[in-house]
Amino acid sequence: MQAGEPLVPMQFSHPPLNYSEVKIKVACVGLCHSDLHLIDGDWGDESRYPQVCGHEIVGTVVSLGSQVTRFEIGQRVGVGWQAASCLTCEWCLGGHEPLCQEMQSSCSNGQIGGFADYFVCDHSFVYDIPAALESSHAAPLLCAGHTVYSALAKAPMRAGANVAVLGIGGLGHLAIQFASKMGLCVTALSSGQSKRTDALAMGAREYLCTDDPDAMSRAAGTFDYILVTASAEQNWPVILALLRPLGELCFAGIPEKITLELANFVYQSQKITTVNIGSRKQMVEMLDLAAKFGIKPWVKKMPMAEINLAISKMRNNEAKYRIVLENTD
Amino acid sequence: MQAGEPLVPMQFSHPPLNYSEVKIKVACVGLCHSDLHLIDGDWGDESRYPQVCGHEIVGTVVSLGSQVTRFEIGQRVGVGWQAASCLTCEWCLGGHEPLCQEMQSSCSNGQIGGFADYFVCDHSFVYDIPAALESSHAAPLLCAGHTVYSALAKAPMRAGANVAVLGIGGLGHLAIQFASKMGLCVTALSSGQSKRTDALAMGAREYLCTDDPDAMSRAAGTFDYILVTASAEQNWPVILALLRPLGELCFAGIPEKITLELANFVYQSQKITTVNIGSRKQMVEMLDLAAKFGIKPWVKKMPMAEINLAISKMRNNEAKYRIVLENTD
Repeated sequence: MQAGEPLVPMQFSHPPLNYSEVKIKVACVGLCHSDLHLIDGDWGDESRYPQVCGHEIVGTVVSLGSQVTRFEIGQRVGVGWQAASCLTCEWCLGGHEPLCQEMQSSCSNGQIGGFADYFVCDHSFVYDIPAALESSHAAPLLCAGHTVYSALAKAPMRAGANVAVLGIGGLGHLAIQFASKMGLCVTALSSGQSKRTDALAMGAREYLCTDDPDAMSRAAGTFDYILVTASAEQNWPVILALLRPLGELCFAGIPEKITLELANFVYQSQKITTVNIGSRKQMVEMLDLAAKFGIKPWVKKMPMAEINLAISKMRNNEAKYRIVLENTD
Repeated sequence: MQAGEPLVPMQFSHPPLNYSEVKIKVACVGLCHSDLHLIDGDWGDESRYPQVCGHEIVGTVVSLGSQVTRFEIGQRVGVGWQAASCLTCEWCLGGHEPLCQEMQSSCSNGQIGGFADYFVCDHSFVYDIPAALESSHAAPLLCAGHTVYSALAKAPMRAGANVAVLGIGGLGHLAIQFASKMGLCVTALSSGQSKRTDALAMGAREYLCTDDPDAMSRAAGTFDYILVTASAEQNWPVILALLRPLGELCFAGIPEKITLELANFVYQSQKITTVNIGSRKQMVEMLDLAAKFGIKPWVKKMPMAEINLAISKMRNNEAKYRIVLENTD
């Protein structure tokens, strides 16, 4: 395959495991927008064709490197976006592994991702999956869940704080659930009304339509924290005006450019923050929280054989809210 | 006087003190760009003509309201930008008095500022001046020092962190000194070379000329924190590129608009923050730190009778780095 083309089956063999690696038989894998970017070649030479994506991976351990004692054969485990880092630089030592210069993802720069039958990576980025989580639910947590949890967990918010989640998709539908279970008072923001009912079912206390100027105006100055999970362009001055004093606007999605008028921000000591995926510690915390409180991605399961159909659905925004591809034995 | 006109002497009497007020005989007062904005009417009806500015006020207590027990007649005290707040709202209770809806400055909205012979305000925003500080040095600390200290103190920086101060003026020359004494490794940034020697004398370890593309390029990715005290337009993409991962760009000065490309910010978990003046607690901390470690504004003293000349010097950027107007008995 080349950039943007349908995926086709291919045969290959993983090399023998090194001492610290784990080989996983993939049971299911979430489909994420980052996979589409890699398939389409949007990120330059991060794609290596034939590009094998898949980075929300759940499966069972089938083989262990000679020094790996953390896992057992047959154990159910998962891997998210990050598959390696140096583990010795200041960022790794500080629990910020995604910032490591040697950060390696699970499915770019030549790493074979979870759309393959088997996935291999260093044990350091393999996680036990709590028994309470179904595999198809665990998969989207490993990237989408990890990202929104890390955004919410790093913000200094008290229980009961007013939090807005902008965008209700793969990330947003999990952000609403996590924020709600973390004791935050959540309002979901999206265009139109089609996702209102879903948002309230996910745990939002309110739904706010970004197309409704009156409603947006009434909500001005009411949010302590706004998590942006939408990648579509927004009316940023109106969004920024939603913040309370000391409020924080955090981007998990990546808009191309944003023009800010900072004067009012200064007077109200507000801030704009950004977040990538989370740390290894946050992955463990996030899975624990999801297991304890029953946080479940809303998934559409499809067989791996239908991956091109799944990609097509995702391109057409027909995935509500995450597609999980399953392998059958 | 009307907007932008020279100041002229005027006679008036303060009303009798209420129970919680303090009357201060003004010894000296710093001249700040905010005074010019108020004189010029840049902030709309915050100016009330005849506009009496002055909000970096040091003087002696000459009269106390019936319930004020914190001060004694003859005690040397100071007042900064903020002169009142409700003291009971969530922001005041949380130590964020500048965010209070009833925030009142020392010299706007009809409050008579420190260019007058006497200044009156609620005792809650009057501060004891440590004996180690000369009055003419204490004055600029009360607004400029307060602002930069609050910016530096709120940032989660370890000792030895790489901090850049952008702009070397009333705020910047104090930010360099405070940051240096707080154990931070400071680089001063300004255009041209005229302030290099001064910046190093203030405690900067390095000086970086923003007009030198090679030097700016070599410094890319090296700063944990950049404090913007300049109000002039900057080459923001180049400034942003100076940040390390997790880095923070904090605005104390107020640029009109700034256009950001956030993609790289997301991958490096960086943030943009803003700061107004500090809290009452930070004022006490800042004065204590300045007294202990000998932090001194670089001031040009002028008699109050020459205030129009002083304003003219400030408009022409001839104030290095703060003009303090002194009253003679």
